[in-house]
Amino acid sequence: MMRPRAIGAVRPFGGGDGAVRCEVVAVGTELLLGQIVDGNSAWIGEQLARAGIDCRFQVRVGDNRARIAATLRQALGRSEAVIVCGGLGPTQDDVTREAVAEAAGVSLRRDAAMGERIRRGFEARGRRFAETNLRQAELPEGARFIPDMPGTAPGLICPVGGKVLYAVPGVPFEMRRMLETCVLPDLRRRSGARAVIRSRVVKTWGESESRLAMLLADRIEALAGAGGATLAFQASGIEGLKVRITVKAESAAAADAVLDGEEAELRGRLGDAVFGTDAQTMESAVLGLCRERGESLAVAESLTGGLAAMRLTAVPGASEVFRGGIVAYASDVKFSLLGVPEGPVVSRAAATAMAEGVRRRLSASVGLGLTGVAGPAEQEGRPAGTVFVGLAREGQAESFEVRLPGDRAQVREHAVITALNLVRLRLSGSDRSAALR
Amino acid sequence: MMRPRAIGAVRPFGGGDGAVRCEVVAVGTELLLGQIVDGNSAWIGEQLARAGIDCRFQVRVGDNRARIAATLRQALGRSEAVIVCGGLGPTQDDVTREAVAEAAGVSLRRDAAMGERIRRGFEARGRRFAETNLRQAELPEGARFIPDMPGTAPGLICPVGGKVLYAVPGVPFEMRRMLETCVLPDLRRRSGARAVIRSRVVKTWGESESRLAMLLADRIEALAGAGGATLAFQASGIEGLKVRITVKAESAAAADAVLDGEEAELRGRLGDAVFGTDAQTMESAVLGLCRERGESLAVAESLTGGLAAMRLTAVPGASEVFRGGIVAYASDVKFSLLGVPEGPVVSRAAATAMAEGVRRRLSASVGLGLTGVAGPAEQEGRPAGTVFVGLAREGQAESFEVRLPGDRAQVREHAVITALNLVRLRLSGSDRSAALR
Repeated sequence: MMRPRAIGAVRPFGGGDGAVRCEVVAVGTELLLGQIVDGNSAWIGEQLARAGIDCRFQVRVGDNRARIAATLRQALGRSEAVIVCGGLGPTQDDVTREAVAEAAGVSLRRDAAMGERIRRGFEARGRRFAETNLRQAELPEGARFIPDMPGTAPGLICPVGGKVLYAVPGVPFEMRRMLETCVLPDLRRRSGARAVIRSRVVKTWGESESRLAMLLADRIEALAGAGGATLAFQASGIEGLKVRITVKAESAAAADAVLDGEEAELRGRLGDAVFGTDAQTMESAVLGLCRERGESLAVAESLTGGLAAMRLTAVPGASEVFRGGIVAYASDVKFSLLGVPEGPVVSRAAATAMAEGVRRRLSASVGLGLTGVAGPAEQEGRPAGTVFVGLAREGQAESFEVRLPGDRAQVREHAVITALNLVRLRLSGSDRSAALR
Repeated sequence: MMRPRAIGAVRPFGGGDGAVRCEVVAVGTELLLGQIVDGNSAWIGEQLARAGIDCRFQVRVGDNRARIAATLRQALGRSEAVIVCGGLGPTQDDVTREAVAEAAGVSLRRDAAMGERIRRGFEARGRRFAETNLRQAELPEGARFIPDMPGTAPGLICPVGGKVLYAVPGVPFEMRRMLETCVLPDLRRRSGARAVIRSRVVKTWGESESRLAMLLADRIEALAGAGGATLAFQASGIEGLKVRITVKAESAAAADAVLDGEEAELRGRLGDAVFGTDAQTMESAVLGLCRERGESLAVAESLTGGLAAMRLTAVPGASEVFRGGIVAYASDVKFSLLGVPEGPVVSRAAATAMAEGVRRRLSASVGLGLTGVAGPAEQEGRPAGTVFVGLAREGQAESFEVRLPGDRAQVREHAVITALNLVRLRLSGSDRSAALR
């Protein structure tokens, strides 16, 4: 069904069968020079995938009007929609507006209302207004501004024949806001797709990919034929393995019901390897368990140098259960402040003493201790990657040794998540061997 | 001058005037889906810029033979060289070899010696060899393998007319090795450019971009005409502003001499706003100054929750001067462990007491204290972003207040670099106001 054409009116592509392709063009010489990594295109690609919109090419091009225009024309030739990101600022370098107009074969006009809005924005921030800023009030004939304008640069929606070009700023939070409030909903409407695609990520730690694959093999097979949910593995390095559940359904409520069911299925199969979903992290899981169980936590760190405390305190509300930590980097600080017996400090005994010491010193119910060799040099005759983790609670303590791979930074990251996972397992009553990774 | 054509022989482009353009094509559906951020292209772009090779486009394309081949053909049409990255593995998804052959208009042949090398590699690692791995021993007619093979996938150099296509694996360390040992030297030889391009980054903290621009304006102007060094500003967010000096010279020694002279010039103009060059960080500068002056350091952290300690201990060799830290997250830990007087803990007095307390507790010569409101909620009636920094040395202490912008993570990062910068200024004898940002 074709609706009548109007500026900014929504026209479904390809007869409303949902077969929409959208290309992403990132503009900026600094991207080509490698001064900035193009995280914007990756983020946009992920959103398009979630919306069920196919993205076959992503192109980066410098601040050159002719090359941007040529790139946009090619993209419009092979896709129904194009998102161009960056080059919308007020300086002479910023030529995306001109390139969009050139690709659309129209001229630019200045919008008086937007000019006034930009001028008032400067006044409100007490900044001097320069006439050159009015370049941002220009838009191609037939285009309109994206209503939401979280920064100082307006975005554009520019229809080109039956296709569409969206121009958004390169500043990540401005780009994201415009995509979420305008571009993605518009693309979904244009695609005519009535289905809702939702996904949920189930996060695990402590199992290998091959073991997860084995535990889920028959489930993946059963789902493959059913046309409902799909499961996909995603590695996230030191932070563990993720299983993404994706569902296409008639409504958000229907999709969520399938996601809930599938998450329960996964949790049943994977047990306490699962530490959270979506935005949950290992540290938020640990803090949540402490809160639930009425426990308080303190950490004593040597090789990780504050990284465990830093991650825990990055979670808003951590102060309710996290008492604090002691970074005992020098050996004598371990002896004097944490009561570690004088002697080797890269040992299970030292890790246990650190955990118990910090628990008492900071009046916490749970104490965690981390000592080891981050590298690059060995210490006390032990190679880089040797790590000891101690856990102390009222009247009980345990410790274990792990050998962690990678460089100094990786060993530290890996040590922290290993230690936090131990707290998680013990607070949730699991007797799983925490040394397994 | 044209040399006779031979497989893999070096032919200068464009008459040896150095005008070489090289496009980068990154292959992988996971890149388009945003599951991986394309850091490879950014890194390659930076290397090309340093080698004086122009890069006008970077394209990401999925694991689709026809689309990769079309992308390579287009790239060869507008550039003298193309680096394609990814899709060289042994599975059916990996179709870059086929696409390179298609773009070059030749067929693939299997190289027996490479097949044997791959088979032996499996045996050496005790892994079962599957025949499908022999796909990696295939190469387009007229092409040769890149000699260095740090992983399991060989790279390719494929001449196409007077132009060249390089195919390298997507695994970052394999890609980087092949570029450094083969692709970049080959490109430089082909460009016929004898000049060496070198750059150095001078890192500053505490001055605005407009003030730096003012301090350097006449120097930038003087250099612009001279054809020697050039200066460019680069923002690096919370980590400060960088000035990149780039030099083109006859030899590495000549380039380094110019860089040394220009760095001295910048340091003279910018004074103690400069904290380091290239790989140096604020924390390595602080640790270096401590080592030089025979000082030892301890930190007491509240809102930053271990981030300062974590950054300091990320530097190898930190243990020589860094004693450790106390993360006093709960107020009563500040009172009991650091001797902060009971009362408001978000205050200049608390910051000073924390600095002095941790200095004594950990027997350090310099103590740093950080307290404040990371947000999102206010605390003690003070808004998020309010931060107090205290510095204590034998017989003296100072503190100051700053208001920092951004969300919880940004406030924490900003607080830490502000505090480390205070230590740097005072150890180097500067009386610059540390509250200036």
